[in-house]
Amino acid sequence: MTTTHSASAIGLDTVAELAAQLRVDSVRSSTSAGSGHPTSSMSAADLLAVLMTRHLRYDWDQPGLPVNDHLIFSKGHASPLLYSVYKAAGVVSQEELMTGYRRFGQRLEGHPTPVLPWVDVATGSLGQGLPDGVGVALAGRYLDRLPYRVWVLCGDSELAEGSIWEAFDKASYYQLSNLIAIADVNRLGQRGPTDLGWDLPDYARRMEAFGARVLTVDGHDLDAIDKAMTLAGETAGHQPTVILAKTIKGKGFSEVENKDGWHGKPFPPDMAERAIAELGGIRNNVLRGPKPEPAQPGPVPDKPTTLPVSGGRPTPGKATPRYEVGAKVATRKAYGDALVALGARDAQVVALDGEVSNSTFADEFEQNFPERYFEMFIAEQQLVAAATGLSVRGYRAFASTFAAFFTRAYDFIRMGAISGVDLRLAGSHAGVEIGADGPSQMALEDLAMMRAVHGSTVLYPSDGTSTAALVDAMAETPGISYLRTTRGGFPGLYPAGESFPVGGSKLVRSSDDDQVTLIGAGVTLHEALAAAEILHGEGIAARVIDLYSVKPVDADALVAAADATGGRIVVAEDHHPEGGLGSAVADALLAAGQQNLRLTRLAVSGMPGSGTGDELLAWAGIDASHIAAAARTLVGR
Amino acid sequence: MTTTHSASAIGLDTVAELAAQLRVDSVRSSTSAGSGHPTSSMSAADLLAVLMTRHLRYDWDQPGLPVNDHLIFSKGHASPLLYSVYKAAGVVSQEELMTGYRRFGQRLEGHPTPVLPWVDVATGSLGQGLPDGVGVALAGRYLDRLPYRVWVLCGDSELAEGSIWEAFDKASYYQLSNLIAIADVNRLGQRGPTDLGWDLPDYARRMEAFGARVLTVDGHDLDAIDKAMTLAGETAGHQPTVILAKTIKGKGFSEVENKDGWHGKPFPPDMAERAIAELGGIRNNVLRGPKPEPAQPGPVPDKPTTLPVSGGRPTPGKATPRYEVGAKVATRKAYGDALVALGARDAQVVALDGEVSNSTFADEFEQNFPERYFEMFIAEQQLVAAATGLSVRGYRAFASTFAAFFTRAYDFIRMGAISGVDLRLAGSHAGVEIGADGPSQMALEDLAMMRAVHGSTVLYPSDGTSTAALVDAMAETPGISYLRTTRGGFPGLYPAGESFPVGGSKLVRSSDDDQVTLIGAGVTLHEALAAAEILHGEGIAARVIDLYSVKPVDADALVAAADATGGRIVVAEDHHPEGGLGSAVADALLAAGQQNLRLTRLAVSGMPGSGTGDELLAWAGIDASHIAAAARTLVGR
Repeated sequence: MTTTHSASAIGLDTVAELAAQLRVDSVRSSTSAGSGHPTSSMSAADLLAVLMTRHLRYDWDQPGLPVNDHLIFSKGHASPLLYSVYKAAGVVSQEELMTGYRRFGQRLEGHPTPVLPWVDVATGSLGQGLPDGVGVALAGRYLDRLPYRVWVLCGDSELAEGSIWEAFDKASYYQLSNLIAIADVNRLGQRGPTDLGWDLPDYARRMEAFGARVLTVDGHDLDAIDKAMTLAGETAGHQPTVILAKTIKGKGFSEVENKDGWHGKPFPPDMAERAIAELGGIRNNVLRGPKPEPAQPGPVPDKPTTLPVSGGRPTPGKATPRYEVGAKVATRKAYGDALVALGARDAQVVALDGEVSNSTFADEFEQNFPERYFEMFIAEQQLVAAATGLSVRGYRAFASTFAAFFTRAYDFIRMGAISGVDLRLAGSHAGVEIGADGPSQMALEDLAMMRAVHGSTVLYPSDGTSTAALVDAMAETPGISYLRTTRGGFPGLYPAGESFPVGGSKLVRSSDDDQVTLIGAGVTLHEALAAAEILHGEGIAARVIDLYSVKPVDADALVAAADATGGRIVVAEDHHPEGGLGSAVADALLAAGQQNLRLTRLAVSGMPGSGTGDELLAWAGIDASHIAAAARTLVGR
Repeated sequence: MTTTHSASAIGLDTVAELAAQLRVDSVRSSTSAGSGHPTSSMSAADLLAVLMTRHLRYDWDQPGLPVNDHLIFSKGHASPLLYSVYKAAGVVSQEELMTGYRRFGQRLEGHPTPVLPWVDVATGSLGQGLPDGVGVALAGRYLDRLPYRVWVLCGDSELAEGSIWEAFDKASYYQLSNLIAIADVNRLGQRGPTDLGWDLPDYARRMEAFGARVLTVDGHDLDAIDKAMTLAGETAGHQPTVILAKTIKGKGFSEVENKDGWHGKPFPPDMAERAIAELGGIRNNVLRGPKPEPAQPGPVPDKPTTLPVSGGRPTPGKATPRYEVGAKVATRKAYGDALVALGARDAQVVALDGEVSNSTFADEFEQNFPERYFEMFIAEQQLVAAATGLSVRGYRAFASTFAAFFTRAYDFIRMGAISGVDLRLAGSHAGVEIGADGPSQMALEDLAMMRAVHGSTVLYPSDGTSTAALVDAMAETPGISYLRTTRGGFPGLYPAGESFPVGGSKLVRSSDDDQVTLIGAGVTLHEALAAAEILHGEGIAARVIDLYSVKPVDADALVAAADATGGRIVVAEDHHPEGGLGSAVADALLAAGQQNLRLTRLAVSGMPGSGTGDELLAWAGIDASHIAAAARTLVGR
């Protein structure tokens, strides 16, 4: 049977029918695919049936409508349920559900990704949907200022992830009453019971302590769910809401209800048949819930802030920064300057930082555009997740912290690539150059980490002018882009206005009789230039390349340099030997089929301690003296 | 003045003098170094003065004594305070403190590392010391069964890290009454006030909700601190304790007390002079607190468990597993088998998993050795941190989860290398081979990530026999070792007992007239073998290398193969193109000065969706057919 209901007519008896349909379709789709998570879908079917018919304000024909509510499955493995919802909404056909789920070349992937127009963010790495939802809700409350709500379905297992608590902490700090987490507490994880089981009061205590309003319900009592969602959806007050639902895994099929050993397993066809029978058979109802009302942006709300009492440093101008050739400036300072200028030109630019904005210089943006700055405190996972959620709503989010601490958020960056969002990440204090603080603060793996991300762009400027240009370029760069900045100040190399295309490089020193090519980026470019000067004094002509675009890399320039200097190349990088600048050079030259290469790679091989930047660059063997020595060896001197 | 006190004689008046000394030394050391965090040290000086004189049971002359308490500075930036404590204990001289702090080649690094014998783990990336402490406390309660306590000094800023809440969750689940967190709530972060400020009741609610006993004190009231530490140190009950201390940043120097703008800044010499004067001048007291009583391991306590209700799968034997050549076995299954055999031979071997033990096959270990298995649920940061803490106490901890989800713990892995601990990480479900689950579950960055870790070992077996051998090898491998396993079952290639040294490789197919070398590991080795068979049918002889040791890599074998096959090499990997197997090959050959290379690298360049493993290997261009095609091109066919 197929019936179509309009929103106003949907009573709870119809919702109950829909819940059964969602369960049946979850069973059918996963059995047809031979994999998937039917029982995890069945526990949440009543929650979703009530939500989609009576609370989710969503125009299924216009998924990009700014006033639409958002629905995020943080428990992405419940994709059979999500896709069954899509079928019930009439946007996915029964045929697609039965032949497309988890199949090659199809869009109904094993875990949801935004290849589907109704999916905001990819999920499947647990504990990420709620932090991402915080980002969307931040946009809704402070930037869009639209009355949409962000509904996030969470599993109970993922509540063990620290990122969930980073999300609650920030949601309450930023008073995100437009964020509603629906916690599907079905007691059973993948391999057995969860640590808290059905101890809903314990969950509630934790959530309330983190500032959420908690509405505890029987997750199979449609009336109770409906009342809780009504209350939650009013978005009154200044707290996020959790609908904490006690549910039964496999609910609706007595053979598996509340039984261990059925996580992530489709039912064999005979069991599926019995399940469908017990659930009342196949249905093909199409029901749509309420559409959002048209709305205009509301007034700008007060935003919580802990701006430094002392007021921080003076506000720079909002013009594009200009740096003198030869004048010392730290690239992290140029990042802050450039971000302010960009923010002045483009109202979609927002900035976030992990409580180190006076080191990354994101504080300059905060002081100029406090309404577009979000302090994430020391919570790097939420930092990247918030940027992800802001990107969903079209904002150009720049997130900054020490480069070393982006390692904390690598799973979120990886998932950001799968989500297809644009993330602009700025990592300061790269490498041993930082000196006295020691190895915990030294990013020495970041280039490898970021290069390995799908579709990423990795940039590493050496002076103020190039930094400013690359910050501008990041604003226009799709996907995950990463800017690596340096702690110390180094002399400007380029006049203001010089262009730095992504994928390019700069030949900063050359002659017709160069014998060797020296390649650096960031601090090692300055060392390479000093090395070239040393070599010049010894009668060795060296060309120097600024490889500011680590990915994509300028293969043509590398090939030309190799050809010009007999294949003799020295690359120096303030990074571990694997996966960074040297790898980018080697990969490009080998891919180009370059022959007769004599490539010497200088990198940080040992475990650094404290010291001055100069001492540590020398200790690591990546300073001018070592670069010159490597060049001498290559030219046979 | 210099006086030496014995433990029994140390009254609170003496402790007060010590606290002033610790503050003075924190000021002096950081001013002398020109960097460091005096104000963050001064807020916690009273807490540490009471702790070291009256509660920390520690034999300073025998830091390796098993019964010693442990002291971890989770707020590693308070290193001036820690080193001042060491001076007060008489193990660091005044001269070292004044000339060694943050200097090149010295051991008093900017943030503590275990180059010092009293430091368990490196800290400085916030939110890690407490999770590491959970690992040490797990060892104390369940394995060592000794009465030592683990005292962890936490900053308030780092309480925003989700990993802190993963730690509290596991500490209460595992009833770690031997774990005492001392939270130094000084209200001020690096760039301004923290989000909760001095709202101690709010912190207490959160900690209590997560199962901790909270003792709130004025962090400058020595008597109150002493009473709280007495209570905490009794380790009665089954909860971790938090001493939640309201403190004043910069306490003791009125010019900076509770003032913003003084984070991470040493005082200029004139200010330092005034601070020292206000604090009563320089002191050189040496005081030691109580030593631990000798103790024998206590009875084995009941360990909380959520073993699957259904009992999981049958228990395998404890003998070294033997696999038949040609018989299909998944390397993840062989991991579980081998771990059981290893555990039977070596009582120091323990295992942990992130709630996917029935996928990683760590559940086999749990069923055989439940007393040496720790379920970490879905909290990968705590998973790695617990392994770190267990390693501190000499256990050989193997931690497993899906390879993709180790990205969640990259900061902890990086810090583990700085801590010098031995971590044995096993990541299952690598690459597109997993099929239907889609990209969120596919590790495609893990080899790059793990290769870039200092001193790491990266292993990637292709069959049961090699997996078993490499698991054994990991038990003897120092530093961070990583085993990448595959979801599907593939035919055994090697007879039982074959040896697989770390840094080696296997020439699995060769002839005297090979024209091209095919290199694979894991699933791509099987594809390479199939490709060689295809090519053989076309009259092209191809040799095949199993590069099971990705780092260190067998450079000699690669050079020999390149020489034997005219530089023609095809590498195929189920990983993104950057930083993985292909990079390992390219890096080694270039470093060896290999000339006339014709290297074709096949890797996963696009964004995968769902599908079967075979479909996705073909789509990615890393299956036998694509390897054969690449080889044909290289040999000009």
